[in-house]
Amino acid sequence: MSQEILELINKKDFKSVKSLLQDMLAPDIADIIEHLEETTNLVLLFRLLPKDLSAEVFSYLTSETQENIVTFLNSNELSYIIEELATDDAVDFLEEMPANIVRKALKGATNETRKLINKYLSYEDDTAGAIMTPEFVSLNIDSTTEEALDEIRRQGEDAETINVLYVVDDKKTLKGVLTIKELLLAKKNALLSEILNDNVVVATTNMDQEKIATIFSKYDFLALPVVDKENRIVGIVTVDDIIDVIKEEATEDFEKMAAITPTNKPYLKTSVFSIWKNRIPWLMLLMISATFTGLILNVYQDKLSAISTALVACVPMIMDTGGNAGSQASVTVIRAMALGELTIKDWYKVIWKEIRASALLGLTLGIVCFGKLLLIDHLIFGFEGYTVIRCFVISMVLAFTVIIAKLVGCTLPMLAKKCHLDPAVVASPFITTIVDATALILYCVLAIAILA
Amino acid sequence: MSQEILELINKKDFKSVKSLLQDMLAPDIADIIEHLEETTNLVLLFRLLPKDLSAEVFSYLTSETQENIVTFLNSNELSYIIEELATDDAVDFLEEMPANIVRKALKGATNETRKLINKYLSYEDDTAGAIMTPEFVSLNIDSTTEEALDEIRRQGEDAETINVLYVVDDKKTLKGVLTIKELLLAKKNALLSEILNDNVVVATTNMDQEKIATIFSKYDFLALPVVDKENRIVGIVTVDDIIDVIKEEATEDFEKMAAITPTNKPYLKTSVFSIWKNRIPWLMLLMISATFTGLILNVYQDKLSAISTALVACVPMIMDTGGNAGSQASVTVIRAMALGELTIKDWYKVIWKEIRASALLGLTLGIVCFGKLLLIDHLIFGFEGYTVIRCFVISMVLAFTVIIAKLVGCTLPMLAKKCHLDPAVVASPFITTIVDATALILYCVLAIAILA
Repeated sequence: MSQEILELINKKDFKSVKSLLQDMLAPDIADIIEHLEETTNLVLLFRLLPKDLSAEVFSYLTSETQENIVTFLNSNELSYIIEELATDDAVDFLEEMPANIVRKALKGATNETRKLINKYLSYEDDTAGAIMTPEFVSLNIDSTTEEALDEIRRQGEDAETINVLYVVDDKKTLKGVLTIKELLLAKKNALLSEILNDNVVVATTNMDQEKIATIFSKYDFLALPVVDKENRIVGIVTVDDIIDVIKEEATEDFEKMAAITPTNKPYLKTSVFSIWKNRIPWLMLLMISATFTGLILNVYQDKLSAISTALVACVPMIMDTGGNAGSQASVTVIRAMALGELTIKDWYKVIWKEIRASALLGLTLGIVCFGKLLLIDHLIFGFEGYTVIRCFVISMVLAFTVIIAKLVGCTLPMLAKKCHLDPAVVASPFITTIVDATALILYCVLAIAILA
Repeated sequence: MSQEILELINKKDFKSVKSLLQDMLAPDIADIIEHLEETTNLVLLFRLLPKDLSAEVFSYLTSETQENIVTFLNSNELSYIIEELATDDAVDFLEEMPANIVRKALKGATNETRKLINKYLSYEDDTAGAIMTPEFVSLNIDSTTEEALDEIRRQGEDAETINVLYVVDDKKTLKGVLTIKELLLAKKNALLSEILNDNVVVATTNMDQEKIATIFSKYDFLALPVVDKENRIVGIVTVDDIIDVIKEEATEDFEKMAAITPTNKPYLKTSVFSIWKNRIPWLMLLMISATFTGLILNVYQDKLSAISTALVACVPMIMDTGGNAGSQASVTVIRAMALGELTIKDWYKVIWKEIRASALLGLTLGIVCFGKLLLIDHLIFGFEGYTVIRCFVISMVLAFTVIIAKLVGCTLPMLAKKCHLDPAVVASPFITTIVDATALILYCVLAIAILA
């Protein structure tokens, strides 16, 4: 489709392009625009869109492409888009733009829009205030179902959703919610006060978006009202924005666990310098902390080598396995906490479970390691250093390392949470460093004590 | 709340419990039931629920608790629940139950329900068929908006949603969709054929749930129709189920990246033996592959030590940093592919980006490592082994390791995808093993060549 449209643009057959676009869904058009290489084509295609579709398509574009387009728009076109965008989309857009574009955009906007946008821009990032939208339908508690339907027909055009309706009193205080289904299925001319649900779950403007995502997935909501301190409804958060939040938060956790400073930019649109900036701090910190294992080895190495170089050769295997065992435990615990399946109150259950699981895992791995060293490295490859007693010590330390790694792996994220730190940040790489150092000291001390 | 209710149960004040429950939301009641320790209280509380609420609460319980409850229910109570549950929830429930409970449940069900459930049970896991529900509202294309509203009032009670309506012809072929908003806001007595949207995105019964989640988040849908080969609508997937899918798929990726076989069970409900079973295969495989680094070290160690033991002491640091650098790249690429931001067609862009980023990262880390070894380890701690030329070789190998790690880290997931393997499975631990071995050989060969 993209190819076809590009060819038509090159042939200057704008009429065919226009009629093709008319039948397409906004996200698909946005996809095509994102994949156009030349900015002039991009602006051209955007201008060919039917006017009522252009704002919707605009809301699906990445902020880089939005900026590309708006620099070519005159202030009339720009203010049309600002007025037509849902408030939350307009705010998302303006937040990413340089100051001159924001000025240009707000200059053409109506007073009301400008005030609204300025208010929304003042909410902190990642809070309910920042992701909510004021385009909801509110109904007066004293109306009948018939009056409510008429009111929906009046307010509905501009509303983001009419699936959930908000019932308020004369002071705009939120009294209850109604789904459109409940309203349509209620008996004729019932009063809203009789049929509303007054047990309403609400968010406050400063509530964290991750917390809101948890509410949505617990209650299967399509929209959640946001209220101020006087319980007046100021906006709603809708489920489509929550899907973005859930994906964003998971991506952030993935990045943190891989020791990357999180960004919201798509990978292909991130510059090499930004990638460097996001990755270097943690990599540097971890490299420096890893050099301490070097210090430990420096202290014990001569004594280990004096017994057998085979003992030194096993160090990376023990440390790798410890790292893997630790990150299994930490990722499990971090994810379970993120999904709300686990709270720090359950810490003793987690530790008890991990003690038993790690004992089993350590035993299994120890036995296999013992057999592998003795049979393959000693008998087949003929490394004379692997005597029975040495293989036993190596395997025993491996087993203990697994147990230590699991315990560090499960407790550290819970401790972080307890200290109001982000559990994902302390995950794999940090745990690896701690486990590495502990395992190494244990190994050196035990091996020298038993074998020297 | 949980405490209060438990006390009332112990006091046998069932009337107060009942009235408390009446005003609560189903997910909150499910929460309380999940946290009750004794099975008898659990069944008691469930029986105290108002009948119309009991099926809804039931759908929010974990399958362990569901099983606990249904073993105490008589077949009348059980078949009531089966009839009241949405088909997708009933199927989810039955899939997890042992055969005797499934038999008991289906025995009391109506013929129609039994047929429907059996059909749904036959769809493969994680496909549209397995997560869809047949409770949707279909409207005839020849009706007017007024007739449609009457039809909604008829079908609506049992429908999972009336927010999206499906317009079909006499053969049940899907002709278009309408939102309830479009229907309510259309002019009176318009024909559905005039106002429907005929550009409909559909799923087929065997479409993967991950693909469906991508569609939902691309188009901001609330529901997606599932059609058979003749384009007849057989069910719908709703957004609340998709939120579960998105979270489930992210959890699976977290687990795979941490070398754990994925499960759907909450951590606290997983037995120690299951944890062992999910973790041991990968841990074992990785341990055995890590012993190969031991073999490499065995070959070169004597020569390295002969130059200086300081060279051996740096091995863990180089390998750790390589592992961290590799997993930064792999996690970024895997996540970007999972979010659809990146396809394998972009492979050359990814490699080119990583080459430049890793060169910068390697250079920075190399310089810092050089300074750190020389200043701290040599001057402050007085390890004589760290001469300038040795520090230079160590830092140079570190820089190259970072570059190799990044390249392996970004290409391996794309290669996996190309070979229709799961990119998440080849992530961190595997990459670590490959990078470890490559870096170690490079280090030993270079160090011996330059320094011996």
